[in-house]
Order: sequence, then structure tokens, then C-alpha cells
Amino acid sequence: MATQKNITVVGAGLVGSLVSIYLAKRGHKVQVFERRPDMRKESIIAGRSINLALSDRGWRGLEGVGIADEIKKIAIPMYGRAIHLKDGSSTYQPYGKDSQAIYSVSRGGINMKLMDLAEQQPNVSIHFSERCDKVDRKNNTVTFYNTVKETEQQIKSDLVFGADGAFSAVRTNIQLHSDRFDYQQFYIDCGYKELVIPPGKNGEHLIEKNCLHIWPRGSFMMIALPNMDGSFTCTLFFQMDGPLSFNSIKTDADVMQFFKEQFPDAIPLMPTLLNDWKTNPTSSLVTVKCKPWVFDDRITLIGDAAHAIVPFFGQGMNCGFEDCVVLNQLIDKHGDVNAACLHEYETLRKPDGDAIADLAIANFIEMRDKTADKTFLLQKKIEAHFNTKYPDKWIPLYSMVTYSPDIRYSEALLNGIKQQAIMDKIMLMPNIENKWDSEEVEKAILNLL
Amino acid sequence: MATQKNITVVGAGLVGSLVSIYLAKRGHKVQVFERRPDMRKESIIAGRSINLALSDRGWRGLEGVGIADEIKKIAIPMYGRAIHLKDGSSTYQPYGKDSQAIYSVSRGGINMKLMDLAEQQPNVSIHFSERCDKVDRKNNTVTFYNTVKETEQQIKSDLVFGADGAFSAVRTNIQLHSDRFDYQQFYIDCGYKELVIPPGKNGEHLIEKNCLHIWPRGSFMMIALPNMDGSFTCTLFFQMDGPLSFNSIKTDADVMQFFKEQFPDAIPLMPTLLNDWKTNPTSSLVTVKCKPWVFDDRITLIGDAAHAIVPFFGQGMNCGFEDCVVLNQLIDKHGDVNAACLHEYETLRKPDGDAIADLAIANFIEMRDKTADKTFLLQKKIEAHFNTKYPDKWIPLYSMVTYSPDIRYSEALLNGIKQQAIMDKIMLMPNIENKWDSEEVEKAILNLL
Repeated sequence: MATQKNITVVGAGLVGSLVSIYLAKRGHKVQVFERRPDMRKESIIAGRSINLALSDRGWRGLEGVGIADEIKKIAIPMYGRAIHLKDGSSTYQPYGKDSQAIYSVSRGGINMKLMDLAEQQPNVSIHFSERCDKVDRKNNTVTFYNTVKETEQQIKSDLVFGADGAFSAVRTNIQLHSDRFDYQQFYIDCGYKELVIPPGKNGEHLIEKNCLHIWPRGSFMMIALPNMDGSFTCTLFFQMDGPLSFNSIKTDADVMQFFKEQFPDAIPLMPTLLNDWKTNPTSSLVTVKCKPWVFDDRITLIGDAAHAIVPFFGQGMNCGFEDCVVLNQLIDKHGDVNAACLHEYETLRKPDGDAIADLAIANFIEMRDKTADKTFLLQKKIEAHFNTKYPDKWIPLYSMVTYSPDIRYSEALLNGIKQQAIMDKIMLMPNIENKWDSEEVEKAILNLL
Repeated sequence: MATQKNITVVGAGLVGSLVSIYLAKRGHKVQVFERRPDMRKESIIAGRSINLALSDRGWRGLEGVGIADEIKKIAIPMYGRAIHLKDGSSTYQPYGKDSQAIYSVSRGGINMKLMDLAEQQPNVSIHFSERCDKVDRKNNTVTFYNTVKETEQQIKSDLVFGADGAFSAVRTNIQLHSDRFDYQQFYIDCGYKELVIPPGKNGEHLIEKNCLHIWPRGSFMMIALPNMDGSFTCTLFFQMDGPLSFNSIKTDADVMQFFKEQFPDAIPLMPTLLNDWKTNPTSSLVTVKCKPWVFDDRITLIGDAAHAIVPFFGQGMNCGFEDCVVLNQLIDKHGDVNAACLHEYETLRKPDGDAIADLAIANFIEMRDKTADKTFLLQKKIEAHFNTKYPDKWIPLYSMVTYSPDIRYSEALLNGIKQQAIMDKIMLMPNIENKWDSEEVEKAILNLL
């Protein structure tokens, strides 16, 4: 093994906890500093946590440190999308082949489990209520302010990982105090609010449990993901401003009228709707891109701190976990978590972080708008059919991103663009709706490939 | 007149000083807070100030408050580009028609003059060594820390203008503490270093005074602008990293070899070259885009704080001054510098700020690479010729940006793209180099328009 290093990880969120386990298993001494108090002791998450969908890239990250089975116990498989139309009817779209699923987990639940697992490593310690106030690149220290004790300490270490999320203090310090740091943050015009479908009387799920539910409405949508206790966490993604928006809906009557018009089938399932609407915050959705991710051969951004994305491909956590997998592979390759390893991590992952950011924004349009569109549904059917017959020639974009961790996000993005160009031509074939599974269409696709 | 307002302007740079004059002339009480000490009393600028080229948009800004004549006294007209080739020969390209020129001014010189003129307004006061530490949107205060007295004060005012440059503290505070602020900063791979051509023995200019001198070398270039004292300020724009870059040139011998190879004609003119190289910093070049520019109907970003751009179109100062002109026109329109006025300022100017940022980056490629290219020079000749014959049908891009303040930057960008598409076709005409001023070519352009 390489020499033991002292490593500071900023943030004990999903990625901070997981990367700590990976680094500890290499024999390094890892100290994790988390801004918030210990969520396992205090209940601090409310109304702000999109349920997360764990898929193959995420599972691979958990398997790499042998904790996938632990997490599977608190995950609910979702095999497809249940589409709720405005007239109250619904349809079902499988996500992939029969056994392929994405898994609903609560952010809090998986985070607490990951913290437990990290602390089970003898060489990991997590320190809570420690706010990162300064990253001093010259003197190689990170300053933490303990918000309970009201004391400050400076930590010197061999390596620093900034795993402190979309509004990373590590990254912000670098932005403000370093030259030549490229940085971009931008918001989409939609925000989100969490709502609830509580469990039935006997703790049962009131709508189909093993689905991701979508109420697509063109420029906005509601989704619902199942929880272990029989409830669903609903999230309304909706314009922040404009004639029909969070801002335009002011009174209880406005809320009820909006739901009656848009989500009539959901109203009976949501007895706490008005209270949830008023109590839960309206949050915004940011994308962050930056470069570099590695500074002075020793400070490294990872997870949302390096590439915050919107949640519409369900890949935020999965991408962060995959960062850990790639880093771990590169530690193998370079024999140590050294400068060469860190720089190759950046070189490899930066294009993938950019790609999944773009894919996530594109998928918002697909979810809110096209999942209710007949042509789109036909196209998906043709792609799935062709994929079944020629699995080595065509993997649909959603499957590449979700179920194919051997395909890089950046490859998936490029393949997806090529496939869409082909499908644009196929969909123009006369009478396509009746001959979508014919040999003629198959041959046309093969010719275009 | 509308009610007198108390206005805080952050930054007494070029735009901060000018906007203060505009606002004071409307009868408002303006307090300007500048981070640095008074540059009129202490010499603090060295080796970091690209000479500025004042052109028509900038002049219009100065004329609007009646100070153009004052500034003209410290400005040197440049009627064209002198192109210095690698073999020591040089060519000349006029910038526009005979009387059209851009004007070389020193940043320090024009800034000091603008401060003087601002302070001549009875209702403007400038406070120096006042660092903006906090913008509290909730309590409507700006906190300034006096770096000499080491005291802090909180200023409440009706309006705040953030005119504090590319690394604006006002904007940074908003980025860190406000939701839904879109922000982007990115660096080009070139940095710059200032060098000097001193005056001749009798204070004369040693190369042609009324030119902007360019040594274009493909991926990098040196330029020189004349100063009043007979000297030229040279700026080398050059890769920061790579096989031939600021980073690769380490010793005196490296510097001399580089200059011998690339700028042999400049060496005899630059007796302090080695010392300047070592003493003057290597600085980087950032572009900043953000949105919104107006917050809470009362905090407004202006100049580089809203849209920092690279210097290659010579438009940074001109664009900032034009911000003041547009704001002033809108004060006329709305009768006051009120919320509607500020929001229309943002709506109008944001696309123009984006456009000049993109144009400035594109012009770097033109300056460093194409000014030495025969096809490019022929194209410019054709455009100038056609412009002379059909002045209402074709204004070359450079002239639209530099001499046509009635054309918005965003229009110039679009027109420029259309014109380039036409010229791409014209340049493919067989034997174009011999018939460039023929009726056939004229008709071809007219057909394509």
C-alpha cells in the first residue's frame, strides 16, 4: 500500500460519506467535516428533499465498498413510469427490460446509512456542525467554524475533498480567491415544492407502489416516488413566475382550483395538500459547471460541488457515486491517490459531468411534455422493439444513462443525438403508426445506423 | 424634477465616476465609495493597465455630461492598424473612413479626470479606501470597511449602483446570498503582460504615433498604444501555459530568444524589456455574464460589474459608458430613475452586454491571426469598397461596433454574422483577387443582401 495520507473531506452528504469509505479502505486517515448537526440525532430534513432514484451507476458505487445489500433494504424498485393524464386516466411505460428498475430511496435514509457505514471504518471520523469558512491554498489549511461551540480550527492535511454540494464552500472560496477558475451557475425557470400522498389505513401504498408516477402537463409536472412507510413524496415542478406559476397561486382557493384543473385524480389522495403547500418551501433548481476540479495537486471537487445538476434524469446521486468509482479505479491504476490520479479523475469526469448536466435539462422537457405525446410514445416503442432485436446495435438513451454504467455519460449524450437524428427520419415514414414493428422499419434503421 | 434620491455608487472607476455625474446632474445626492485610496494622491497603478481605446460610444457618454472636450485633451487619435510582420516589414490598415479614429487614453489619466469632474458636482462626494463588505438586501444596507481607519459603516440609501468592476463585490455578495442568480465567469487561455516602448530623446514617438500597432503571430500577439509623453504601452497577449507560453519562458535568455524570433523589430525600441518582463505581472483575462442586473427594484449592476469582457474590441470602457447613456435616456423616458427605468435598462442592455462579450472574444482571433492573412485583408478591402459605394447597405462589423453608436451591439453581432456568410461566398468567386473592385462583385453582393 501507498503511504498513509491524512485526508480532509468537506461534507458528510451522500458523496462525502461514500468517498470517505473508499479512501479509508485504502488505509488513509479520513476526517469528515459536516456543516450541519448529525441528522441521525436531530430531525432536520423537512420539505426539501426530492426522493432519489438510485440506478446502476449508483449501485456500482455502493457495491464497490460492499454496502449495496444494506442499502437495498431501504430501496423500492420502480419498473416504469405511470403517466397520469388530465382526464384522470393513466398509462404505463416500462423503464427498460423486465427486470430493469430504478430504486426510490429517501435522501435522509440513505445518507444516515452511509454515515453509519463510514463511521464503522476505524480510520474515519465525522465532525458535525463544522462550517468550512476558508480554504487557504497558500498555507494549505482549511478553516472550520464550529457553530455549536463557536470555535474555529485550522486543519492541515495531505488532501482535501470538497464534497459539500451545489453551493460548495470549498469551491466558492476558490472562485473568490483564485485566478483562472471557470465557473457557471444557472437556474431553470421552474422551481419545486414537495407535497405528500400519505399511506392508506393499513400502511399500504394508495397508488401503484413500484412506479415513478408522473402527471405531465406540458410546461410543468408533478411526480411521486414511493416511500417505505406506504407514503409517496410528490414533487411539483412548476414555473416560478408568470401567469400560471408558484407566484400566481396565492390563496387556498387558487391551490384547489389549480389541482382540480390539472391533477383531479390526485386531490383525494392528498388530504394535507393545503397545509403542505403553505408549509413547504418553494425551492429553485440550479446547474453548476466549473473547471478545474483539482487544485494544487491536492484539493479535489467531487459530486455536486463539481457538477450540480437538475434532478430530471435521476442522476445527481448516481453521478456523484460514479465519481467515487472512477476515482477508485484510478487509485488502482496509479497505485495511490496522487497528483496524477487526481488530474486523470478530472480529465475523465469533467466531460461526463457536463454531459449529464445537459441530459438532465433535456429530460425535464421529455418528462413534463413528451411523456404525454403519442408520437413520442410510438418512437419509444420502436426503439425498445429494435433494441430487443438488435441489443448490440441500439440502446435507448434512457437505458444508456440509467442501466449501462459501462457507457460514459458523454458517450450516451453523443449516441443519443445520433439516435434522435435517425428516429426523426423514421418517424416521417408514411403510415409509421401501423408498421412500427415491421421489417421495413427495422431495415430503414439498420440502413441509417 | 423627480424627488431627490440618496444614491450609493460602489466604485469610483471609469463607469462609477461617470454614472455619478449623470445622476448628480438629475439633482440626486450621490455618495461614491471606492475600495482603493485616491489615485490622484498616491501612485498605485503600475504594469496592469491596458491602455484604453475610446471610440464613438464612449465619446457619446462623455458628451452627455459635457466633458468630451476635457478628455480629448489627453487622448491620441489612432486612424488604423500598423501591422508588424515577422520579417520586420509592416503594413497599414485604416480603421474606417478618413476621419474615423479610435483614441488612446491611459486608464489612470481618464479615471482621474472623471473623478475631478464628478467632485465638481456639488452633490457628489467620493469616499476612498472604502471596501464593500456586504450587501444586505433584506435590510437595504451596504456595509463598507475603511481600510485606513479600520472602521465599518452601514449605508442605507434609495438606490445602489454596483460599478465595482469585473470582480464586483456587490455582484459577488448577491451571488453568494441570493437565490436564482445566473452567473458565469470564464477565462481565455491567453493572459497578458505590459511592456514599454519609451519616448525618443526629444520626447518623440519612436514609431508611428497615430496607429494601434499590432504584431500578429497566429495564436498570440503584441500590441502598442501611444501615450501623451511619447512612449507606447505594449501589451503581449500570450498563452498562459503550453510549450510556448508565459510559463515556458523562464530565463532572460528565453525572453530575448522569443523576442528575436517573434518581434525582432521591437527589440531596439524596448531597452527595458528584460526588467519590464520580470517586474510586471502576468494577468489573466476574464469574461463575466450574469442575470439579473437589477435587484429589489433598487440595486443595479453597471459596467464591468454587469458584463466584464476581454479587451480585444476595445469596447470595455465604451460599453460601460454606453450603459450610462442608455440609463440616462431611460430616466428621460420614465421621468425618474425608478423601478421601471432600471428594469428597462436591464432588458435593453443585457443582450448588448452579451453580444459585445462574444464579439470581443471573436476579435481576439481576428487581431492575433487574421490581420496577417491575405484573404482576410482582401475581404476587408472589398467590404470597405462596397461600403463606400453603398453606405446604407453595408457597414463593416468593426465600424458598426466602433463608429456607429446608433447600432446596438446585439444588432451589430447579428449583422456581422449575415455579412460574413455573404463574404464567405464572395471570397469563393474565381479570380476574386483581381476583380475585387469590379461591378460583377458588387452585383454579387447586392444579390446576396
